[in-house]
Amino acid sequence: MDYLLKNCDFVLTWINDELRILKNVDIAISDGSIMNVGTITEGGFEEIDCSGHVVIPGLVNAHTHTPMSLLRGFYDDAELMTWLSKMWSVERELTRDIVALGSELSIIEMLMSGTTAFIDMYHYPDVTADVALKYGLRTALGPTFIDTLRRPSCVENELRNFVSKYGDSSLIRPIINVHSIYAVGKDTLLRIKDLSDGLNLPIQVHVSETRDEVYESKKKYGMFPVEYLNSLGLISSRAQLVHLGWVTNWELNIIARTNARVTHAPTSNMKLATAGHFPMRELMDIGVVVTLGTDGPASNNSLDMFREMKMAVLLQRHSYWDVSIKAIHAFKAATLNGYKLLGLNGGCVNNGCVADLVLLDLGSPRLQPARLDNILSNIVYSADGSDVDMVIVNGKIIYDKSRDYQAFRERARRISERLNDFIGKFI
Amino acid sequence: MDYLLKNCDFVLTWINDELRILKNVDIAISDGSIMNVGTITEGGFEEIDCSGHVVIPGLVNAHTHTPMSLLRGFYDDAELMTWLSKMWSVERELTRDIVALGSELSIIEMLMSGTTAFIDMYHYPDVTADVALKYGLRTALGPTFIDTLRRPSCVENELRNFVSKYGDSSLIRPIINVHSIYAVGKDTLLRIKDLSDGLNLPIQVHVSETRDEVYESKKKYGMFPVEYLNSLGLISSRAQLVHLGWVTNWELNIIARTNARVTHAPTSNMKLATAGHFPMRELMDIGVVVTLGTDGPASNNSLDMFREMKMAVLLQRHSYWDVSIKAIHAFKAATLNGYKLLGLNGGCVNNGCVADLVLLDLGSPRLQPARLDNILSNIVYSADGSDVDMVIVNGKIIYDKSRDYQAFRERARRISERLNDFIGKFI
Repeated sequence: MDYLLKNCDFVLTWINDELRILKNVDIAISDGSIMNVGTITEGGFEEIDCSGHVVIPGLVNAHTHTPMSLLRGFYDDAELMTWLSKMWSVERELTRDIVALGSELSIIEMLMSGTTAFIDMYHYPDVTADVALKYGLRTALGPTFIDTLRRPSCVENELRNFVSKYGDSSLIRPIINVHSIYAVGKDTLLRIKDLSDGLNLPIQVHVSETRDEVYESKKKYGMFPVEYLNSLGLISSRAQLVHLGWVTNWELNIIARTNARVTHAPTSNMKLATAGHFPMRELMDIGVVVTLGTDGPASNNSLDMFREMKMAVLLQRHSYWDVSIKAIHAFKAATLNGYKLLGLNGGCVNNGCVADLVLLDLGSPRLQPARLDNILSNIVYSADGSDVDMVIVNGKIIYDKSRDYQAFRERARRISERLNDFIGKFI
Repeated sequence: MDYLLKNCDFVLTWINDELRILKNVDIAISDGSIMNVGTITEGGFEEIDCSGHVVIPGLVNAHTHTPMSLLRGFYDDAELMTWLSKMWSVERELTRDIVALGSELSIIEMLMSGTTAFIDMYHYPDVTADVALKYGLRTALGPTFIDTLRRPSCVENELRNFVSKYGDSSLIRPIINVHSIYAVGKDTLLRIKDLSDGLNLPIQVHVSETRDEVYESKKKYGMFPVEYLNSLGLISSRAQLVHLGWVTNWELNIIARTNARVTHAPTSNMKLATAGHFPMRELMDIGVVVTLGTDGPASNNSLDMFREMKMAVLLQRHSYWDVSIKAIHAFKAATLNGYKLLGLNGGCVNNGCVADLVLLDLGSPRLQPARLDNILSNIVYSADGSDVDMVIVNGKIIYDKSRDYQAFRERARRISERLNDFIGKFI
């Protein structure tokens, strides 16, 4: 189906890394891509009236653990050891069915709040991939190396199967997940480098999230975490380094030189009280592609990328004691940079970009007054996911509030009942 | 009209400062108060089916500048001096009509997101009071002393008129607003103390918001801001001290000893990059009543108290490097403590409390899975104002989503057009 989005009040896009805001334009979509932006009178399209709406590129949640909505609020705020032991007691008994339910609940929440793609790390990635395909959401994910839980050879087998199953999908991008340097040994890390090279797969890894991790790395290897990973050849343009709350200044140069990508997850860092500072300004200054993620729904506990954009600006300003990080930086991280990380020509609304778009309801009172000069500010600081009226991924309408809202709500309620039956025995 | 809220799935309330969560109860409301909570079979009420809903006490936005939605996103993120000069150029030309429009837009946003009462500081408080009365929202407000803008005698006259006009209202509580120690001189402050004593009026004041304010106070008076205000007799159980990002440890004892009340506005502090730390844990430990506010919609830019509760927990955890501040503390600050600050028996769902209640839609996907053990966590960390289905203030239904949503949206759109006509000439 080809669509023509008619009479969009505002369209936000990126041209040569510069934000452009267009007024009163139409967008033609064909075969999964944007084929024209402007005043369009051609026929042959299904027309969608977008008056009263802002169109933005889809939001990329660059780091989450999708199925963990099943653990949302579970022993939340309990002391750490209680929480961990309770969490592990559940995770030991996870089944594919339960993971499917958690994934589905999160995917419903994500697409209703304007997320068009997410990068995931959790058990049974094929289960999550199948749910994402069912709903039409884009995702990058794959099996997770974590030596403390699983034999590396098993994960490697799972990875090869995952790549054969999903490697040709237009929506699924296989990646190698590496839990962390403290949960994965040196031999496994070297093997992972070979796999990444051989299969041309990105690597997502939690790095320098806590002081303890950094301290232990320095003690054990004489190197800071990014230095250590670099010494094993794992820092490259295929690396996605998540958290970096305790990264040193001199590690930033390694990241810039290798063209590695980074992800900030401010809400999760704050909720888990890991403290530290993700040096967003310095990373941007040296040209690093900064992206944003909510982290898992058990440590946030929201998957709303609008809230995450605002949080990124706020936390950065609090840390720097200045306003150098602005709405535009968070918006770029969540859109254009998210698609760069995925290796796609997207995160923008130009001819040839993938048609991953979000229609925001400009009539929402919290977005008023709305004008050309404050629309970006209102989107980042005032909007939340509830303002989303439609989500298009790969040229398909995967969420139309007027059509899908009730059905998705009902489905979420039924999932919730089944999850509570499962969780009940661990409380 | 007397109401019976039937079959509430969960009800959150406070009994002797302890949170209680009730399951499957009914709530009878009569004459503006809660008259019974439990299983109720009596007749004579209009019944409201609350199955599928959580009932919580209404949220108190303890510090805002309501009309400033008219400046939402206006030169946001511009450099400070540009922003200030632009802001002042508008504020110099404000009329009562424009202030009424800004107030109405904010009041619509507040009541749609579960705020039942707000404490306000801005020009033309009678205009804002009238809009609040029209919509049925509770508010505490009054003229603002700010020597740099207005003669204190004018403000005093306005205050006396305000008290005679609204002093008997069940919804409006007159207060004395004092901008700050840097905008109000010593003579005026001494006069304000007499007025507060004589008229028995609370005093709301911005204190220790910025480093500069603290530095100048120490230099000019040899005292820190709370010490200085205390030396003039202004710190008492009638004082509401807002911000306190740079308060010293030794000033906390003055606050505790005098039973003064305090308000945390985390989002605004972060957005304006004032940095510092509101010592929430220490204030709670010494028994101070801590409340929460969004600050004005030009420095947040949201009036959603659900988002503010989450922000308070997150910012506190980031500052303390631990999880000692929990969901329950933010929820108490926004409900029970908000009503303590207002001097009302409210913020709870017990016999005799004022009937200020919010019904949350338990079917919202972002609140799933929902159980007795995680419902508080889901409310504070996952919910946002869009999950509000009904708001009751003083026993009256002031917002019923199924009845009012479209009309409020339309009204907000019309207000937005008129505000943009006014703002247009300053851009």
